[in-house]
Amino acid sequence: MGTSCSDFDLKKYLPEKTIVINIALNKYLQEQYPPLLYKAMRYSIFAGGKRLRPFLVLEGARVCGGDEKKVMPTACALEYIHTYSLIHDDLPAMDNDDYRRGRLTSHKKFGEDVAILAGDALLTEAFGLLAANAAVKGIKIEQVLNVITLVSGCAGGPGMIGGQLIDTRQSSDSSQEKISAKKQALTYIHNHKTVALIKASLLAGAILAKASSRQLKALTVYAEKIGLSFQIMDDVLDVIGNKKKLGKTGSDRQNKKLTYVSLYGLEWSQKEAAQLIAEAKKAITTFGRKKYILAALADYIVEREY
Amino acid sequence: MGTSCSDFDLKKYLPEKTIVINIALNKYLQEQYPPLLYKAMRYSIFAGGKRLRPFLVLEGARVCGGDEKKVMPTACALEYIHTYSLIHDDLPAMDNDDYRRGRLTSHKKFGEDVAILAGDALLTEAFGLLAANAAVKGIKIEQVLNVITLVSGCAGGPGMIGGQLIDTRQSSDSSQEKISAKKQALTYIHNHKTVALIKASLLAGAILAKASSRQLKALTVYAEKIGLSFQIMDDVLDVIGNKKKLGKTGSDRQNKKLTYVSLYGLEWSQKEAAQLIAEAKKAITTFGRKKYILAALADYIVEREY
Repeated sequence: MGTSCSDFDLKKYLPEKTIVINIALNKYLQEQYPPLLYKAMRYSIFAGGKRLRPFLVLEGARVCGGDEKKVMPTACALEYIHTYSLIHDDLPAMDNDDYRRGRLTSHKKFGEDVAILAGDALLTEAFGLLAANAAVKGIKIEQVLNVITLVSGCAGGPGMIGGQLIDTRQSSDSSQEKISAKKQALTYIHNHKTVALIKASLLAGAILAKASSRQLKALTVYAEKIGLSFQIMDDVLDVIGNKKKLGKTGSDRQNKKLTYVSLYGLEWSQKEAAQLIAEAKKAITTFGRKKYILAALADYIVEREY
Repeated sequence: MGTSCSDFDLKKYLPEKTIVINIALNKYLQEQYPPLLYKAMRYSIFAGGKRLRPFLVLEGARVCGGDEKKVMPTACALEYIHTYSLIHDDLPAMDNDDYRRGRLTSHKKFGEDVAILAGDALLTEAFGLLAANAAVKGIKIEQVLNVITLVSGCAGGPGMIGGQLIDTRQSSDSSQEKISAKKQALTYIHNHKTVALIKASLLAGAILAKASSRQLKALTVYAEKIGLSFQIMDDVLDVIGNKKKLGKTGSDRQNKKLTYVSLYGLEWSQKEAAQLIAEAKKAITTFGRKKYILAALADYIVEREY
């Protein structure tokens, strides 16, 4: 909003965008019948998330010359999908987490049956919201369909769900000879569980803004780098971070999950995260002056405290 | 396929269509990485289902003058969604069923984590398959988007998932004064849990075949009538049916679920099912000679033994 590169403060800009995104989410996700279902859907949607994925949809559109306001339904749809994945990941059969961001997880609050269904409903209605973006003036219907195809792939078996399956089923066996297999599994998990949806978010916004293939390529590289860096920093913060700030109970360690820190050590992990961020920033030079928000976001990932 | 009204035998026609649908499903749902996920997805997709929903997609297109072959991705997508709903409904937190159609349910075979994820993946990839129908020559992209919106609504919170939530949360309290509330709940459950997706199937095929609003209206009434009749007959067969043929363990009664038979009695239920079928057949007179397959299907619902 008229912000120039030099005086840009991401820590002020992000909360402003969060408010705008929350207003849109509140508009789209109104309570319907059955009330318990929508109460559970809204409980998880409004659980204090950072709105990174919708933010990336808006930003993907903006850097490619599009209008952020015109991709808001798609931005919110990506948050629906992210939220459904958290609800299902927290289930007893998966990560078995009682708390997330300091609040009871959906199944602890509403019961497992409602949590499963609230997740299912968010996923199902996300695609309706993606389709609804076609009603916005200036958005081409062909691009909306391309976004639906993209999101289905990135969120589905070849993407996020595949990553979660390997994550939930990887062995916590600690024998030395399997270390390379573990490293391979960990990279697969994060490239799919986290990176795929971050990539889908950026590209969805860009596609709706009629991005060139060169722009899409740059955003793909950027997404892959910041996504992996984000995940490495999550592992780092799980070890050194403030438990209260993170609002998690350190279940990654309790469950003996693979983490970058456990496989590569703390120092290597922090260096790798910083290196990835440098590469991410290099990839977006094609956007010229417009790149400053994405560049600041990349820096923020390695500098954040929770 | 050149079959005329007079010599039409649905019991020969349905298995032929099932083969065609299974070939298409096998083409779309190829094993990918991670293998365990796709093994679970294929296990449930190829569990001997009757393929009613994809059949209705094809038939919705055919009666409206469309080409069945051109709506096959959408037909298979509806089977993905039906299958995901069965996998999640069978989970311990929901109906807690160990067997379906005489085979172990997904969570008994693969574990709860994999079952949840296989369901999620089928739902997610269903929307990709709906979008893929736009690549078929002669299919209009606007209609594909309309179908995605329709399916998202019918399968989501206002539709199938809402029905399942009321089903899983309705009280098995047997006090007399609440009988009217129970009847209301039961109607809601079936109109949403079963009817919504049957309606979505017929209308999806019809929309892709560029149906008139009069044709869509006729198919809506037909779907509502046969859907409810189908569900009533399910309750009837749960009581009088052959356990072996049904391949279920009678869990509806074990769980003290609301059923038409328990609320209205066996005789009333059978009469009501027949009455609904008569009304369904009346609704499709607008299709003239082409209606014979839908008419035979309606009859089949009350005449079936399992």
